[in-house]
Amino acid sequence: MQNFEYYNPTKIVFGKETISRLDDLVPQDARVLILYGGGSAEKTGTLDEVRGALAGRTIQEFGGIEPNPTYETLMKAVELIRNSEVDFLLAVGGGSVIDGTKFVAAAVNFEGEPWRILEEGGAIIRSALRFGTVLTLPAAGSEMNDGSVITNKAKQVKLDFMSPYVFPQFSIMDPTKTYTLPLRQVANGVVDAFVHVMEQYLTYPANGMVQDRFAEGLLRILIEIGPQAISSPDNYDIRANLMWVTTMALNGLIGVAVPHDWSTHFIGHELTVLYDIDHARTLAVILPATLQVCRENKRDKLLQYSERVWGITSGNEEQRIDQAIAHTRSFFENLGIQTHLSDYNLSIDDIDRVVKQLEAHGMTQLGENRDITLDISRRILQESL
Amino acid sequence: MQNFEYYNPTKIVFGKETISRLDDLVPQDARVLILYGGGSAEKTGTLDEVRGALAGRTIQEFGGIEPNPTYETLMKAVELIRNSEVDFLLAVGGGSVIDGTKFVAAAVNFEGEPWRILEEGGAIIRSALRFGTVLTLPAAGSEMNDGSVITNKAKQVKLDFMSPYVFPQFSIMDPTKTYTLPLRQVANGVVDAFVHVMEQYLTYPANGMVQDRFAEGLLRILIEIGPQAISSPDNYDIRANLMWVTTMALNGLIGVAVPHDWSTHFIGHELTVLYDIDHARTLAVILPATLQVCRENKRDKLLQYSERVWGITSGNEEQRIDQAIAHTRSFFENLGIQTHLSDYNLSIDDIDRVVKQLEAHGMTQLGENRDITLDISRRILQESL
Repeated sequence: MQNFEYYNPTKIVFGKETISRLDDLVPQDARVLILYGGGSAEKTGTLDEVRGALAGRTIQEFGGIEPNPTYETLMKAVELIRNSEVDFLLAVGGGSVIDGTKFVAAAVNFEGEPWRILEEGGAIIRSALRFGTVLTLPAAGSEMNDGSVITNKAKQVKLDFMSPYVFPQFSIMDPTKTYTLPLRQVANGVVDAFVHVMEQYLTYPANGMVQDRFAEGLLRILIEIGPQAISSPDNYDIRANLMWVTTMALNGLIGVAVPHDWSTHFIGHELTVLYDIDHARTLAVILPATLQVCRENKRDKLLQYSERVWGITSGNEEQRIDQAIAHTRSFFENLGIQTHLSDYNLSIDDIDRVVKQLEAHGMTQLGENRDITLDISRRILQESL
Repeated sequence: MQNFEYYNPTKIVFGKETISRLDDLVPQDARVLILYGGGSAEKTGTLDEVRGALAGRTIQEFGGIEPNPTYETLMKAVELIRNSEVDFLLAVGGGSVIDGTKFVAAAVNFEGEPWRILEEGGAIIRSALRFGTVLTLPAAGSEMNDGSVITNKAKQVKLDFMSPYVFPQFSIMDPTKTYTLPLRQVANGVVDAFVHVMEQYLTYPANGMVQDRFAEGLLRILIEIGPQAISSPDNYDIRANLMWVTTMALNGLIGVAVPHDWSTHFIGHELTVLYDIDHARTLAVILPATLQVCRENKRDKLLQYSERVWGITSGNEEQRIDQAIAHTRSFFENLGIQTHLSDYNLSIDDIDRVVKQLEAHGMTQLGENRDITLDISRRILQESL
């Protein structure tokens, strides 16, 4: 097992009717900026509940943070804060709102052009505003980690940063707040979490026994409850387990001391930027193709995945790997998420453009062995057609 | 799933040659008290390594914290600190040294008789000295939680307390430091961790899917590597995985939102206080008997444990439960840990004395349903003979 560090100070407050806990969690004298996305937080009443819980404090609001939050939008929040007395941020929404809030928290006191935070992957951050979150969409795991992905519309690029300064102080997770989510977003969330786990698990054996067993457990739970989360939207236990799985999928724990392969996310980011395909849908397209193209490098873990996650024990090695990849694809498709580029009206003629973007963004050595070159990414995209 | 809170700010620094990291982790101007146990930290060179890493700081030392650390000993450390300028504690050792350090950290500034901290279960703590740990014995999980168990020799009682103020700031975990441990202590550690998991898992189904899968994963790993940790003491990967499993077994994560049954620990504490039996050995005696006596209440989880942890799928329900309990007992015995009171020279005549102690300490309603009365505890002890 490799050496590692693990640190995660976010306090989780999980369960029914927990939004009222904001009154304890946010200091009485805080001057709060609530950040949110589209109109759903208002329509569902969640924003009103939040306002009520914060009564007595000075509150401002900043709405309109979009899916795949943009630098352009977030810099408006940064300006607002710089011209006011805000000293506490509260993100109300899903991964996009929380990722955006992390960027805003780090950018407010940053000297120089804040886009550099993304270009340097977060390494140059020295402080951030305090913030908490109220999670309404189980998917990204941003509520309990120190990572964020931001899109620069002008530059047509989606970059991520990490910094221990942007762990949320707390995250409130009330599964009942997910009942009204569009099923498309729920399905996306299941796939996003599934792929997060796979990217920390499906590489080569590294003797991280806890990490493997935990990853396999999370995958099995998603396979079991994913379809139920769609078919029974107001089943509390299903939604509660889904919410906790998506957090555990990317709070750092299963990723310590093991190799990672984030190539599916990186290739997927380019598809979102160029073609506006939902983030999770790009993952559902790229992951099965990556497993297929990289099956030799990933052979041992594919066999382990096949047996421990899908219970496949018959057939020779190639057949078991084929079955595992096919099961993965079917799992996504059964959630209503299509897994081929052609399903999104892309053809072989689009591949050059995607590969060019990867090249422009320095994505020339992806994967756990850094051997997913532009040529291999091209093969993965071809396999995705 | 029940509502829950989860918060764990301890930073883990894990791997080979990590003791040198103390230089970053302990403030340069800290006045440090190093707390340790018997002579092994000195003999193995670990203490010297720690002193070297802290060079330049004012250091004092307090040795002699015993297994099942006593109030009497720890209050001497409290006096020493009150008469000096110490402002940072560093525990070097296993669960006993770390538990003791937590108590010292909380007691130093406590107004009134510090034993009240134990009597009140930690609820009255309002501050604690900062401290970190260097773990040398994988077992108790104290390096990443906010709990502590202290023995009062004079009162013949072992009580625990919990407080968010006594999370270690950091814990350094170098698996190579466990190579020289006596095999008896390694076996004890495996059993201690196994029982920690069982006490958070083997109750009744509560729909905590992540908690169940994680618990089952930890149990399976312990079953796999426990014997190897004994037979191959200097196998790095085995010792590293053992160390991480024992931490995860009791850092709070698998215990959120599920019922607990700590009766094995509570009954075991009395056996340690009265007869000086190793903590883990008391657990190995009491757990199988508890599963047997409480098999009706625990039926559903026993069947799940039987299938998912031991892979038992044949036989009727009673047979599968019998097999699972027998496997558990054999697992302990194969580690060299005997599982009957008679193995420790106790007989039926001793049971009254143990039950009286339970009564004196208010342990009259144990278990996940609070229905392990003194009569049931007596039956468990009889079953343990």
